Amino acid sequence: MKRVVTFGEIMLRLTPEASLRFFQNDRMQASFGGGEANVAVSLANYGLDAAFVTKLPENDIGRAAVNQLKYFGVDTGLIKRGGSRVGIYYLEKGASQRPSKVIYDRAYSAIAMAEKDDFDWDEIFDGADWFHFTGITPALGKNVADICLEACRKAKEKSIKVSCDLNYRKNLWTTDEACETMSKLMEHVDLCIANEEDAEKVFGIKGSDTDVVQGKLNYEGYKDVALQLKERFNFSYVAITLRTSISANYNEWSALLYDSNDFHFSKTYPIQIVDRVGGGDSFGGGLIYGLLKGMSSGDALDFATAASCLKHSIEGDFNRVTLAEVKNLLGGDSSGRVQR
Amino acid sequence: MKRVVTFGEIMLRLTPEASLRFFQNDRMQASFGGGEANVAVSLANYGLDAAFVTKLPENDIGRAAVNQLKYFGVDTGLIKRGGSRVGIYYLEKGASQRPSKVIYDRAYSAIAMAEKDDFDWDEIFDGADWFHFTGITPALGKNVADICLEACRKAKEKSIKVSCDLNYRKNLWTTDEACETMSKLMEHVDLCIANEEDAEKVFGIKGSDTDVVQGKLNYEGYKDVALQLKERFNFSYVAITLRTSISANYNEWSALLYDSNDFHFSKTYPIQIVDRVGGGDSFGGGLIYGLLKGMSSGDALDFATAASCLKHSIEGDFNRVTLAEVKNLLGGDSSGRVQR
Amino acid sequence: MKRVVTFGEIMLRLTPEASLRFFQNDRMQASFGGGEANVAVSLANYGLDAAFVTKLPENDIGRAAVNQLKYFGVDTGLIKRGGSRVGIYYLEKGASQRPSKVIYDRAYSAIAMAEKDDFDWDEIFDGADWFHFTGITPALGKNVADICLEACRKAKEKSIKVSCDLNYRKNLWTTDEACETMSKLMEHVDLCIANEEDAEKVFGIKGSDTDVVQGKLNYEGYKDVALQLKERFNFSYVAITLRTSISANYNEWSALLYDSNDFHFSKTYPIQIVDRVGGGDSFGGGLIYGLLKGMSSGDALDFATAASCLKHSIEGDFNRVTLAEVKNLLGGDSSGRVQR
Amino acid sequence: MKRVVTFGEIMLRLTPEASLRFFQNDRMQASFGGGEANVAVSLANYGLDAAFVTKLPENDIGRAAVNQLKYFGVDTGLIKRGGSRVGIYYLEKGASQRPSKVIYDRAYSAIAMAEKDDFDWDEIFDGADWFHFTGITPALGKNVADICLEACRKAKEKSIKVSCDLNYRKNLWTTDEACETMSKLMEHVDLCIANEEDAEKVFGIKGSDTDVVQGKLNYEGYKDVALQLKERFNFSYVAITLRTSISANYNEWSALLYDSNDFHFSKTYPIQIVDRVGGGDSFGGGLIYGLLKGMSSGDALDFATAASCLKHSIEGDFNRVTLAEVKNLLGGDSSGRVQR
Amino acid sequence: MKRVVTFGEIMLRLTPEASLRFFQNDRMQASFGGGEANVAVSLANYGLDAAFVTKLPENDIGRAAVNQLKYFGVDTGLIKRGGSRVGIYYLEKGASQRPSKVIYDRAYSAIAMAEKDDFDWDEIFDGADWFHFTGITPALGKNVADICLEACRKAKEKSIKVSCDLNYRKNLWTTDEACETMSKLMEHVDLCIANEEDAEKVFGIKGSDTDVVQGKLNYEGYKDVALQLKERFNFSYVAITLRTSISANYNEWSALLYDSNDFHFSKTYPIQIVDRVGGGDSFGGGLIYGLLKGMSSGDALDFATAASCLKHSIEGDFNRVTLAEVKNLLGGDSSGRVQR
Amino acid sequence: MKRVVTFGEIMLRLTPEASLRFFQNDRMQASFGGGEANVAVSLANYGLDAAFVTKLPENDIGRAAVNQLKYFGVDTGLIKRGGSRVGIYYLEKGASQRPSKVIYDRAYSAIAMAEKDDFDWDEIFDGADWFHFTGITPALGKNVADICLEACRKAKEKSIKVSCDLNYRKNLWTTDEACETMSKLMEHVDLCIANEEDAEKVFGIKGSDTDVVQGKLNYEGYKDVALQLKERFNFSYVAITLRTSISANYNEWSALLYDSNDFHFSKTYPIQIVDRVGGGDSFGGGLIYGLLKGMSSGDALDFATAASCLKHSIEGDFNRVTLAEVKNLLGGDSSGRVQR
Repeated sequence: MKRVVTFGEIMLRLTPEASLRFFQNDRMQASFGGGEANVAVSLANYGLDAAFVTKLPENDIGRAAVNQLKYFGVDTGLIKRGGSRVGIYYLEKGASQRPSKVIYDRAYSAIAMAEKDDFDWDEIFDGADWFHFTGITPALGKNVADICLEACRKAKEKSIKVSCDLNYRKNLWTTDEACETMSKLMEHVDLCIANEEDAEKVFGIKGSDTDVVQGKLNYEGYKDVALQLKERFNFSYVAITLRTSISANYNEWSALLYDSNDFHFSKTYPIQIVDRVGGGDSFGGGLIYGLLKGMSSGDALDFATAASCLKHSIEGDFNRVTLAEVKNLLGGDSSGRVQR
Repeated sequence: MKRVVTFGEIMLRLTPEASLRFFQNDRMQASFGGGEANVAVSLANYGLDAAFVTKLPENDIGRAAVNQLKYFGVDTGLIKRGGSRVGIYYLEKGASQRPSKVIYDRAYSAIAMAEKDDFDWDEIFDGADWFHFTGITPALGKNVADICLEACRKAKEKSIKVSCDLNYRKNLWTTDEACETMSKLMEHVDLCIANEEDAEKVFGIKGSDTDVVQGKLNYEGYKDVALQLKERFNFSYVAITLRTSISANYNEWSALLYDSNDFHFSKTYPIQIVDRVGGGDSFGGGLIYGLLKGMSSGDALDFATAASCLKHSIEGDFNRVTLAEVKNLLGGDSSGRVQR
Repeated sequence: MKRVVTFGEIMLRLTPEASLRFFQNDRMQASFGGGEANVAVSLANYGLDAAFVTKLPENDIGRAAVNQLKYFGVDTGLIKRGGSRVGIYYLEKGASQRPSKVIYDRAYSAIAMAEKDDFDWDEIFDGADWFHFTGITPALGKNVADICLEACRKAKEKSIKVSCDLNYRKNLWTTDEACETMSKLMEHVDLCIANEEDAEKVFGIKGSDTDVVQGKLNYEGYKDVALQLKERFNFSYVAITLRTSISANYNEWSALLYDSNDFHFSKTYPIQIVDRVGGGDSFGGGLIYGLLKGMSSGDALDFATAASCLKHSIEGDFNRVTLAEVKNLLGGDSSGRVQR
Repeated sequence: MKRVVTFGEIMLRLTPEASLRFFQNDRMQASFGGGEANVAVSLANYGLDAAFVTKLPENDIGRAAVNQLKYFGVDTGLIKRGGSRVGIYYLEKGASQRPSKVIYDRAYSAIAMAEKDDFDWDEIFDGADWFHFTGITPALGKNVADICLEACRKAKEKSIKVSCDLNYRKNLWTTDEACETMSKLMEHVDLCIANEEDAEKVFGIKGSDTDVVQGKLNYEGYKDVALQLKERFNFSYVAITLRTSISANYNEWSALLYDSNDFHFSKTYPIQIVDRVGGGDSFGGGLIYGLLKGMSSGDALDFATAASCLKHSIEGDFNRVTLAEVKNLLGGDSSGRVQR
Repeated sequence: MKRVVTFGEIMLRLTPEASLRFFQNDRMQASFGGGEANVAVSLANYGLDAAFVTKLPENDIGRAAVNQLKYFGVDTGLIKRGGSRVGIYYLEKGASQRPSKVIYDRAYSAIAMAEKDDFDWDEIFDGADWFHFTGITPALGKNVADICLEACRKAKEKSIKVSCDLNYRKNLWTTDEACETMSKLMEHVDLCIANEEDAEKVFGIKGSDTDVVQGKLNYEGYKDVALQLKERFNFSYVAITLRTSISANYNEWSALLYDSNDFHFSKTYPIQIVDRVGGGDSFGGGLIYGLLKGMSSGDALDFATAASCLKHSIEGDFNRVTLAEVKNLLGGDSSGRVQR
Repeated sequence: MKRVVTFGEIMLRLTPEASLRFFQNDRMQASFGGGEANVAVSLANYGLDAAFVTKLPENDIGRAAVNQLKYFGVDTGLIKRGGSRVGIYYLEKGASQRPSKVIYDRAYSAIAMAEKDDFDWDEIFDGADWFHFTGITPALGKNVADICLEACRKAKEKSIKVSCDLNYRKNLWTTDEACETMSKLMEHVDLCIANEEDAEKVFGIKGSDTDVVQGKLNYEGYKDVALQLKERFNFSYVAITLRTSISANYNEWSALLYDSNDFHFSKTYPIQIVDRVGGGDSFGGGLIYGLLKGMSSGDALDFATAASCLKHSIEGDFNRVTLAEVKNLLGGDSSGRVQR
């Protein structure tokens, strides 16, 4: 079985019920999530051997995060225990014209304060076929960016494939900082994943005739984005997810994959959103799965897009779908008819 | 007041909250439902005298099922008490492209293990004007199919009208088994109700140019389905509900009624779905009500379609609407404006 | 800072969870609301000095209502304590074709039984710039209508601007009673706010070619409604909110403002509804804010429409939005994209 | 089967969750209850034919109250429909030294505004063996007291046994008013039920050496209370429940029954309280059951005390216990051991 | 690390909230539990390598049970997948004199229908040091009793220690059936665990002067029970848990261990009960832990009793405590003081 | 009206439902609390003018904390806005022998990172009669300890009374650090409040013959503690709360007050605990109220003890009681009888 290692932060996610505003009542939904953990959970769900690497404190909150990953069959044996806090993100679900809102309280978390010695990449990469991280990980701090760089170098040494989801977060760093740090990391990356905004925010590479705020995407223009990314960093694959946000309840979702030979475009899914957080991560998880399983570029893209389409119908960061469910949608049944 | 007797199974229904996946959190919505009980509740809501016949164990779960029926004014005096378990169905609500999912745990239930002597149909049909069952009842087992057949014969002897909703369930029997058993029962049936798939699954009668999985229904083609059903079994009425599944959240809903003279088509309702389970049963309940009240075929069909349209906006199996509410929709107000 | 005084009733609002029918389970959402209190909360949210005047009993329910207003920063110092009950309204949320339903249990409330001596308008209006009430307040009873009239007169004496939202409620009075009472009050009103039905119900002034029940509004026809209102009562401003009800889940929302010179039409917002109660009140609050802040008529209308568009995405009567959020929507971002 | 008719008010009961204070969060437990309805539910649970008489509005709240009674098998066919509101009581559960708190919002309810012509006692008492009411019913107003008196007279004419639970409520009337009205009603009463305070509050008859506020009851002293009650009103039976309130969580509970020959004292139960409201009513229901079933005075008292002991462990007004459960406790098993 | 294998059934547990009666509202707490799974969870919590063996269907309910065990770090790799249903038990929590109530719906579950070939005990016991089962497992059916016997024999062959908790369940078999089957199994057992009733129910061995229903235990008398058990089956260890049930809320809890040399009695803990199900299992888990870790008999008993005392304060079947928490209680701190 | 200023941290408090363990399900109760805020809320509830001083970020979490204080009528006008995070504390409620557990995640909060310039004590103390802080405030960091010292000095300059609750928290600092910092602050303190452990932990002053872990307090020995505190720091008043922890559910609670002349001991309350966090703060609030209102030492102590007794029956940090409720308990009614 193929083994994938992902590296990043898993946070406590606090969300008011339904579409309530923050603190509108006295309860919070408490779950765990984070880009790289989300990818590991997706892969474990599909039956791969997925390990998640991070640092978590030795308290009840850290333990709950670990156990939650175990629930999904993710290998947690490589997680470094220590530090003092688990990062938190508060998520308020939007509705109609009111956007969803994320407040980060992740500074000073165990992983954000981690040191090089916390991780022995030789040991971590033992038996691994693929390494995945996102742009959030190096954005946690210079120390973490350095750890990330070390991991990338070690992965390349060991001929492990490396994928990175750019995942630009404006609350963690500026575009300049992102560009500088990410450029160095990109050298080691085989598969680069971006959303409709990331390439512009991080590397200043923009699709023409597109205005995300107005819900207008020029799909053709993204070919050029993929091409430029490939040219600048010599990626084997560039994948771009394309979200047209009509409202907080309704999005259109598709993706393209450039495999250095061809541009592949997925089907576009009209989506009634239950929870869109983790949508991109479930795309990444699906794509890595497809490529590791030896699917063609087009098939891998279709798998990733169908899997991530389904994620939008699932509460929480994690994509709780099975292979069978993704395949059912790929098989053409998007009618949502009762299965009984 | 007209009296209707329905016969079948009432189950405990376990549903995760909102659109959560099974066991995504630690709670289940616990309610009761089942095709034939749903019809009885609809009729009691409209003010008819409705009795539900089944077998339920003498424990707290059986008692709760009985009391729930009493809550809606259904006559529970004919329910046989005994056996050891109440059947269960687990329902996961779908969203967008993710379908709703039903897991049956109904084998070995009190009614599935019932014997002929459990029911005295002479007594049961005392004062009854109508008898209703669905294709689920005989699918519970050979013993129950036999009881069903006896009930049908006895009903005919007593000139009680008989209706049957085909309700094919692939997890209960094969199409061959269904065809054999149902064909025998159909001889006694006056009103046959089917959905867009049942006639094909049970009797191999298919509308042309239709693909339910792709959400494509050829309404005209169903005229031919109705005609063939009428010809094969000599029904007085054939009703077919027509659901176009666009997604788990959005369906289009209409129906046709063939009364041996004319084909009547209802209005098509665009529906934002709260809970679509019991949609067909509420159609059946509405149609029986209309016909028993002496409405014209067209009016009865319109009543049934409006009533079942409203059901889709109601949580749980049961159609908790009043006559006044159905009439308000029939009167043309589908705007959902606040009533105050 | 500008000071606004609003006068009316704050009620306990009891709502079943999600889209459940009344008493479908054993819980109620308990919150507080009411047209005039809703306006005060909106204004306090935007940073104005807003006071709410009413009468509330000296018990735990009255105290909770007061504290809830304090939570939002509304000045509750002018509330008269006494009487024996807090009015209640039961709200069932509709879905699809099933309308939302309001049952009033507000008769005999402290404010409905209030007497003239309960309020000293000289004191109440000390420092006030604006006075707002709605057609619900005088509908509570002759006694309250008289208090309202006294308040209006006193406000005019003190050159305080007066606004009134017609808010016709058929369960509180007949159209004839409303017309007689409201006509007397209108003399003192500067800004009259109505919805697509109020002018016809209260004053018999109807837009041409419009059928609200069928979800059909002739926007141009409402210019004439505004003109007639202005002519009959010499208002400085007439605002009309225009709701096209497609279903209980989906409405279109816009408004017009006639400032005696020009007719201004807002953008039309397509709205996925979370809770539409308080939609009109949040429009009123936004408009008063805009005019008090010296915005142009068009800008004030746009602000009010954007603010009230957002209200529809918020649970409960109160519009829990900030100035920044309204401005973000005004700035053109209606895509509901995650803010992080 | 013996038939019992009870007459009084059924109210909506609104209770914060667990031991929260009023409005400490945004939810209320919504159930129904009221002294006389509670007795009818107890009797229906034990298998008797129990009818509840009241007046309830023709709206969703009235309908829910009726259906709730049907759930328990209570005959609701004699309930007069009309009037405008369902009475409400707010209940905050106490804990430790903090007392439970009831706020009544029951004035102007349908039953409180009922008129003599609303009830035809000849018809109501058709087939009845027993009539039960409590001191709360006449306290609702002069009109209801008069209806009550008429019912008592009619019951006596028909040789129906009459029971009354004094149930003094200081928020409904003064002790003087209670004394005057209740004295007239007592003439017709066969079984008088009181708690440790009622006789003193209503008729000025006090047990010696007792201080309920301090949790000190002189059991022997209550013999004298029973004797005086018997002497003044010539009751066949006087029952007094004796509650020693140690804290809001812990009470001791026993009762005495004076059957004109002997004084019977029940066992004293130490009770961990889940919900003590309806404790007295479940005693009344148990006692009526015992006497109607022909138990000896001592046995009837023991049954009533055991039944009402169990009620304290049940949430809500209604005593959801079966005969078998009462008998199990009577049989001596009070250990609360798991039954499996 | 020591490896323990437990064998039995894991069920879905459905519990009404708080102390509500079955179906008193529309929700159920849904968790998983069962005697042998509970022991595995306890051991995994303390850091041992614990595997649970059973048969579970390949559906979402089976998968959730497996994942829940993974959450606690239990090895689920030996679970046989197949069969059609997951057993269920309904649990109603008692209060005061009202007992907790268990309704089993576990017949026909995958494990109850399992066949010998489903389990390869050579493979299962690879690396194992200890095998544990309870009297519930053979009670599931002759087939399962046979599997159990095979497992016991194989364990003995491999010099694996065997423990059995008698766990008599009257709803699964008669005392005669239990005696016959269990006697054969006992030959292979090293550690026998019983509660205050089991030895009498299964083997007719009774302590003198004890009446569990009346909450009266003669501790000394249990020495004789242990002695007789030892003599009849030649156990190395006999442990007996001693529960004095004062009420459903309050129990006293202690245990004795007879190690063939000495009788050891634990401290008696007065317990305010949160959830007593799984109390005995957590004792078993603690005792196995202690013995495997090489504690003295007295220390192992103290550990087991402290661990199981803590279990009573934890909701659900599983004992969610850490070694540190058990040790803190063993260290003498039973004051429940806030740790901060 | 007397004005009290309190200074410290208000945190988000995250608590699992009922007595669940951390993350046992997917929800958290989210409220706000903290020693000094709790005192301010108590005082506002009793009708005093109470202001709370802290630093809170300008985000939705900070805003919610402020609004929550406004709900209780606390003056929030002096709160400094800025910084990046609101401190959090996780609270797991214990039961029986299992202790409650607090996990702090309060490092790096806005107030913990505050600087001297954030607070202008001249302005803050304008109109103030009393200043209160606790030992937690200086424990947040050297910077906060310095701010505290400045506040104390300024208060003394202005003849404002100063009270301090020692509130030693071992997770925030060592006893040595506490002793050094607190000793400097004590010079300015008039009223020193401690619990049964603080004096020993902070200043090494221990009552004889006491073992808190074993639930054994020697009340007389605390006289000596009070005397030594008075002698070392020349306090006008020393108050010591005395908690005997029998279990997590049951404590005994009393207090002593030494007013430099006499030792006053309060009544001892046996308490069934709902939530014991904030118990000490509610004592402090009650004592400050009593002294400010001019009560005698004994009366102030009785008031404070009764008020804090009631707090233990209330969920959350804040003491949601009214003056009337405290007085009712002081008047001798501790029976918890229903008030209706």
